[in-house]
Amino acid sequence: MYALAIHGGAGTLPRGQLDGEREQAYRSGLTRALAMGHEVLERDGCALDAVEAAVTLLEDDALFNAGRGAVLTLEGNVELDASIMDGERLRAGAVAAVTCVRNPVRLARRVLEDTPHVFLVGHGAEHFADEIGMVRVPNAYFITPERAQQLAALTARPPAAGVAQRPVLAARDDSPFGTVGAVARDRAGRLAAATSTGGMNGKRPGRVGDSPVIGAGTYADNQSCAVSTTGHGEWFLRTVQAHDIAARLRYGGASLEAAVTAAIEQRLASLGASGGLIAVDARGQIVIGYNTPAMFRGSVRSGEAPRIDIY
Amino acid sequence: MYALAIHGGAGTLPRGQLDGEREQAYRSGLTRALAMGHEVLERDGCALDAVEAAVTLLEDDALFNAGRGAVLTLEGNVELDASIMDGERLRAGAVAAVTCVRNPVRLARRVLEDTPHVFLVGHGAEHFADEIGMVRVPNAYFITPERAQQLAALTARPPAAGVAQRPVLAARDDSPFGTVGAVARDRAGRLAAATSTGGMNGKRPGRVGDSPVIGAGTYADNQSCAVSTTGHGEWFLRTVQAHDIAARLRYGGASLEAAVTAAIEQRLASLGASGGLIAVDARGQIVIGYNTPAMFRGSVRSGEAPRIDIY
Repeated sequence: MYALAIHGGAGTLPRGQLDGEREQAYRSGLTRALAMGHEVLERDGCALDAVEAAVTLLEDDALFNAGRGAVLTLEGNVELDASIMDGERLRAGAVAAVTCVRNPVRLARRVLEDTPHVFLVGHGAEHFADEIGMVRVPNAYFITPERAQQLAALTARPPAAGVAQRPVLAARDDSPFGTVGAVARDRAGRLAAATSTGGMNGKRPGRVGDSPVIGAGTYADNQSCAVSTTGHGEWFLRTVQAHDIAARLRYGGASLEAAVTAAIEQRLASLGASGGLIAVDARGQIVIGYNTPAMFRGSVRSGEAPRIDIY
Repeated sequence: MYALAIHGGAGTLPRGQLDGEREQAYRSGLTRALAMGHEVLERDGCALDAVEAAVTLLEDDALFNAGRGAVLTLEGNVELDASIMDGERLRAGAVAAVTCVRNPVRLARRVLEDTPHVFLVGHGAEHFADEIGMVRVPNAYFITPERAQQLAALTARPPAAGVAQRPVLAARDDSPFGTVGAVARDRAGRLAAATSTGGMNGKRPGRVGDSPVIGAGTYADNQSCAVSTTGHGEWFLRTVQAHDIAARLRYGGASLEAAVTAAIEQRLASLGASGGLIAVDARGQIVIGYNTPAMFRGSVRSGEAPRIDIY
């Protein structure tokens, strides 16, 4: 028995704002990514390969805020973050602030496989990509007209009261949808999780959210569950969200459903934070929680039909 | 009732390898840092100020692997990481791979106080330091002859079998002692934690360990405890160590002592990882655990005499 869930971000886009054609495009992108991971699990591949395959496809799809189509920094560039974790041996790989690697999740996987490290950032991460022979892409590869427009709209807006004095310090998260991710349990009972993002529209260069942080945006442990989050990255960092779900199972004996409900609907909401997460436990139970109006998501389990949902 | 604990790293230095004069220098450094944080708590300052003050002093002390006196990267530079967390409101600040900021823990505090973000890395973090008027210091300020010698000793050594084929991928942690940190509970019951490091001797540029990662190297929550770790950074990242201790209290109902014992003596040891941590809980109980032969540490509680210990 295997299980796979993916997400393309949770956000504030109200129903009706997504026209039919565009909704269809999102559904197609999610369907393709889910099918890619599904295929790995169906032919008895490992959970780690399944989440990497699904996230790679979402990175390549310009609709999602990861890889190509990622949001821009205040300086108009793209800086990408990603992480991946193997729940069987607690191996993990993460990269942040990379600007020239087409698939950050693949680079994170190589950090996991080929280095004694977990986390490489900036030029150091890119230098590692060069060493292992990953082809560099120009930063322009990632930039779509739509994201350039979103940044322009943000910077053209008159600053909110009080912000003028401290223009560089303002929160600038306007992107309705974000981060992509995947969690899986394979037939052998191995769990894995992966997350990838461009961060927030108009972010300060060097700002790192929860996505590449093991424990916050991504966590997997065969003994409990695998989790990938999306939303207010800073709050997910402060609450160490992905590991917090696993700890509710491990130490509190909670079910995955109870843990996700308590974390998303109660704790995060009480902190004023919004977002969502996908999780799968050791038995292959999938739970998806979010406190936003919508979340791009998909899931499939062995013997069941794949599902794609937005609202 | 207040409580403060600090550490200057846990490592493999066996008893007797530290000569009397050098041991005295470490004790003096720890004593000064402890006194600095102690003074803050004694005059009813907050836990956050106390941990920042203590860690700042350890960063300035060339004996410890943080700030001045940090270990060098494979390229012969210093790259610094630090984080700080306020357990009352779960605010946090962290910086990684900074090369020109004298006190990374102070920069992390400013990220906490003055930005909507938690984590800034590399040039972006340094650019923020410029914006808030922190004076840059040349990278040479951090470099001591001893650390240059340690790097030379490492790079001169013939590579171990199997490493020749993959020279850039080898683990290079030879520094017997590492990271510095502090945890505190103030009279008002607020908890805080801070950690700062130069990482591992001969590390790959851009490699980030657990110290600046909220949840791994640093965590604080008034509802459970404050934790700062030191040791095999990659394993502390994979086990999300600092938050794991807090979760054992929060969800498992463990005492701080039971949580630290289970995490350090059982789980970490079973994973083949070594290191230690300092922790303080909501009642002001201090627990220090390590599975290395020694750990530079100090602690003080209101009405009690300060202690400095190595073995």
